Amino acid sequence: MTKNSESTAIDVAPENPNSGPIGKKKSTTPLLAAPVPVRQDRGTHRMKRGLAIFDFVLRIGALAAALAAAAAMGTSDETLPFFTQFFQFEASYDDLPTFQFFVIAMGIVAGYVVLSIPFSIVCIVRPHAVGPRLLLLILDSVALTLTTVAAGAAAAVVSLAHSGNSSTNWLAICNQFGDFCQQASGAVIGSFAAVLLFLLLILFSALSLKHH
Amino acid sequence: MTKNSESTAIDVAPENPNSGPIGKKKSTTPLLAAPVPVRQDRGTHRMKRGLAIFDFVLRIGALAAALAAAAAMGTSDETLPFFTQFFQFEASYDDLPTFQFFVIAMGIVAGYVVLSIPFSIVCIVRPHAVGPRLLLLILDSVALTLTTVAAGAAAAVVSLAHSGNSSTNWLAICNQFGDFCQQASGAVIGSFAAVLLFLLLILFSALSLKHH
Repeated sequence: MTKNSESTAIDVAPENPNSGPIGKKKSTTPLLAAPVPVRQDRGTHRMKRGLAIFDFVLRIGALAAALAAAAAMGTSDETLPFFTQFFQFEASYDDLPTFQFFVIAMGIVAGYVVLSIPFSIVCIVRPHAVGPRLLLLILDSVALTLTTVAAGAAAAVVSLAHSGNSSTNWLAICNQFGDFCQQASGAVIGSFAAVLLFLLLILFSALSLKHH
Repeated sequence: MTKNSESTAIDVAPENPNSGPIGKKKSTTPLLAAPVPVRQDRGTHRMKRGLAIFDFVLRIGALAAALAAAAAMGTSDETLPFFTQFFQFEASYDDLPTFQFFVIAMGIVAGYVVLSIPFSIVCIVRPHAVGPRLLLLILDSVALTLTTVAAGAAAAVVSLAHSGNSSTNWLAICNQFGDFCQQASGAVIGSFAAVLLFLLLILFSALSLKHH
């Protein structure tokens, strides 16, 4: 029974260079060096490959969300159509340090997602590989933290820009700079979408590790 | 070899109700219903128990950090020693919606950590249990997100309170309300400590799942 399921696994994943000699060897002694293929069967193999493909799709989505958030915040710039003798009224994302941090953090996250895509493809080709899966899980947690802290900080500032705060005498600026505020709000929504996608990525990585 | 390690595992973890009959059965047919104890040995068992104890300690630390952050922010309240005919100058955390959210979020996170401690103890008693470990990993990710978003938002507002922003005409209030600002800053630092501890918790949960 175990011998049978082992050869089945080799048929499904012929690209594994270690499994070839094991399949040809007919001795019944247990192989200490290759303990992985013993317990796999067709069902978990298919499920893990499905999870890996889903991981790839979610990763593309997270990349799109992070890039869209960075682009929306980075291009937010509004100049009012009137000006005094001394200065023009202009609002841009680099007036607020929080928004600058947001653009940089989203750029880093987008770069990380691009670099992580090859590992995700490795997980599709070899659904039982534990190393890349674990690496992705840990780095995804770090990316989740970076995305979330940028999203939270930008959301707090956007909320202040929308409604102001009477206790601290901070006035709402969205009455004057409506377009700027709308674009910043869109960027915050995009970053929270990225947060949600990273949470799902961690969930599926954990499920994939469970059935190892 | 496999038979030997199986009986060792049963000696160490006698509370598993499924392992008793397997240990007594002397037939060589593989049991489909109980594939888990085949590959475990004493080394990974010890390592997993060590990781589980470390998980418990980190969890206590995260609870302390979240409670301290909530308490520091919740008791931040300063009344200036002078007043006009019409009103007193007072700053409190509930003047700012972001700080209110921070206190509520830290309270929820502290409550979650308290509820998660029994599962952590289960993982110490049964280091090879996958269910509680996976549950903790997924819920820790959600708690990490909540902690991080509250920490990021509060950090953005504290930074504004400290240095203000000239573009939007938001003046720094920490010149007047120094003690209030200090307490809020301490709360933000505590919440970032909780973020770090949650990241470590996720890392160790992932490592523990890997060697399953």
